[in-house]
Parts: sequence; structure tokens; C-alpha cells
Amino acid sequence: MHEIEIKDFENLDSRYRATLINSITGFKSLNLVGTQDEKGQENLAIFSQVVHLGASPPLIGMIIRPDVSPRHTLENIIAHKFYTLNHVNSHIFKQAHQTAARYDREISEFEVTGLTSQHIAGFDAPFVGEANIQIGLEFAEKMDIQINNTSLIIGHIRLLRLRENYIKKDGFVDLEQAGTITCAGLDSYHSTKKIARLSYAKPYKPLDYIE
Amino acid sequence: MHEIEIKDFENLDSRYRATLINSITGFKSLNLVGTQDEKGQENLAIFSQVVHLGASPPLIGMIIRPDVSPRHTLENIIAHKFYTLNHVNSHIFKQAHQTAARYDREISEFEVTGLTSQHIAGFDAPFVGEANIQIGLEFAEKMDIQINNTSLIIGHIRLLRLRENYIKKDGFVDLEQAGTITCAGLDSYHSTKKIARLSYAKPYKPLDYIE
Repeated sequence: MHEIEIKDFENLDSRYRATLINSITGFKSLNLVGTQDEKGQENLAIFSQVVHLGASPPLIGMIIRPDVSPRHTLENIIAHKFYTLNHVNSHIFKQAHQTAARYDREISEFEVTGLTSQHIAGFDAPFVGEANIQIGLEFAEKMDIQINNTSLIIGHIRLLRLRENYIKKDGFVDLEQAGTITCAGLDSYHSTKKIARLSYAKPYKPLDYIE
Repeated sequence: MHEIEIKDFENLDSRYRATLINSITGFKSLNLVGTQDEKGQENLAIFSQVVHLGASPPLIGMIIRPDVSPRHTLENIIAHKFYTLNHVNSHIFKQAHQTAARYDREISEFEVTGLTSQHIAGFDAPFVGEANIQIGLEFAEKMDIQINNTSLIIGHIRLLRLRENYIKKDGFVDLEQAGTITCAGLDSYHSTKKIARLSYAKPYKPLDYIE
């Protein structure tokens, strides 16, 4: 295998480096984050740095870079406490990507992209109507990552909204059935094809395919 | 659309809840983490909670739950400082999954799964020879997430090893060409199919397909 080694990142062109490093961790989750401010001004932003933190309590983390966009999202989460994650699917990936543009604060990305702002009684942040899996979160904690001035935003899952048939008997959510897509780097969108589900791994026991 | 709402997570069966919450954030990156201890005892563990933290400096974060497995990985990273991330592809996903089994400390998951421990001069942790994209990291910081007793492990990228033709002119790494796969939940493995790459989003400018 003809391989190259990259050791000297500092001398790479900064945009080339950002593109390279953003794509090197592997495929990423793809969510639209819906927020609003105290006046009801809505905001929608695409995020690929979302990570499962734990199931009990049900917590989700997001990495935010406060000095870059999407600062409106961060400000809204901290001030207003509630926010939503909405899975991106192949029907809305272009609108989802467009939310990354730096619109002024008084512009709603729902309006400019045509995505539907959906309000659920009792939950104080906008969902994306076109998303087949919707998660309502309440802000729990902001941890500052001083090494590079980013923050880990931790949210407590308060509400899950999805079609019942996406959920299998054991609790597994069939993302492929929901049309959820994934991304690589900052701009490459991919659908998925299931290879297999594997049984719980135990030492010296052969694995089975499940479901 | 017939939707269900889940609000009451505490009353769900704990295994059902773990499966549900683990699959709800979307598709995830899939890496094998290679480490060794001071005696050269090697360890390999699959991780789907890896997140891009920033490109300058090039940093990668991983969520680790110290009270569960893979604690050998965490101990090795902190004691020995160097570790590797290795992309999982469709040829090795079963071996990768099997590394999640709770082997005793003196057992090398390389040996029991048959994956190749590859040593690169000047880098003091084992890579997975079968991985087409390999990342060498140096431990930078451990941040404890007290809300649920997990930790964010931050590593500085010191070395990237991959085929030259995976890297496009702008620095984008073509993960699909490299055979990198993704996962949903704890046990569902998926290959990908590219939909499109989209141009940088600007307000009120139409998006183009790129490359």
C-alpha cells in the first residue's frame, strides 16, 4: 500500500488543513439545531459535532466554537435553555447545508431555506417539520475547552418524536428507515446501506447477526 | 405522520433505554483505538464517540466512560500518552465489534481478533494494519464530565497515514474511497453512498455541487 504520512500540520494552508482535519475522524451525525431567543426570533443551524454522552440520564453533547458561527445558536441555548436536534435526510440536505451561511441575527434560517418551523405544545423551541426524527433538549451545562476555545454543550433529552415503526423491539432506532443521512468533512453528504447488526460481543463467543 | 413522543425515560427498561438513546443521535464515526502499556502490552477497542474538536491545532476528542469498559484504553492513554485511531472498513467490522468484549487486561485484542498490530518507527502505539486511514495521537487533556461520570479525552494529531489518492486537491479525504464505514447505535454497521458535495454556503447564493 502506497501511503503518505502527514506530520507537519502547521505548514499546511489553513483552509486545506481545516478540510483535511474535518474529514479525518470518519462519518458524522448530521443534525439541524433549532433555537429561539426571548423575542421568539428563530434560528436553525447545521451541526455535525454531536455526540452521545450517556443514556441514564439521557444526555447529548455538541461541540461549539463560540468565536465562529453559529454563535446565535449558542446564545439562544444559554439564554432560552431549550433547543431541538432534527435529523437531516436526503430530501432536505441542501436546505440544511444552506443554514451554515452567515445570516444576520434577525433572519430566520427556517424562512430563507423554506424548512418548516414546527411548534409542539409544551416545548419551547422550534422543530424541523421535515425531519423524521426530532429530539427536544434542555440545556444542562457548558464546559469550556480551553485548549482551543471551543465548548461542549450538554443537553438533557426531554422529548423524542419519531414514527413508532422506526423503533425496533429492543429499542434500536432504524435510522436508515427514517432516511437519516451522514456526512464527511464539512460538505459531503452520504446515504447509508446496512451491512449487519451484530450481537453483543463476549470473549471467545462467535458473533451472530441479529434481527 | 403517525408519531410517538417519548418523555418518560426513567421508566424505560435500562437496556432498552441504552439502545434507544445510543442510536438517536444519528450515524457515528467508527474507529479502533490502539494503545499499549509500559510493558508493551497492547490493547485495541472500538469507539463510536469520537468528535472533531478543531483543525488548528489539530485536535480530536473521545468520550470515555471510566466506570465501564474500555478502561484499559483510558489507563494506557494517560500512562503512555500515545494512541492511535484506525478507521473501520467492511472487511474488519466483525473483528472490530469483537474488541468490545471484556477481555482480561493481559489479553491483546489484536491477537484474539487476528487484526494486525502495526508499528511505525517513531510512534509509540500500535496501528491496525488493515485500516486504510490511520491517525496517531498524543494525549493532551482529560476533562471530567461530572454530570454523568464520563470523560472527554483530547488528543493532538501527530501523524496521519493514508493512501495519497484518498486526499482530494482541497484537502478533503474521500472516506468512501477508503472503505470507511459508519455505525448506528451500538451494533449496526453501514456502508455509505455519496449523494453530493456542496459548495460553501453564503447568504442568498445558490449552492453548487463540487468536485
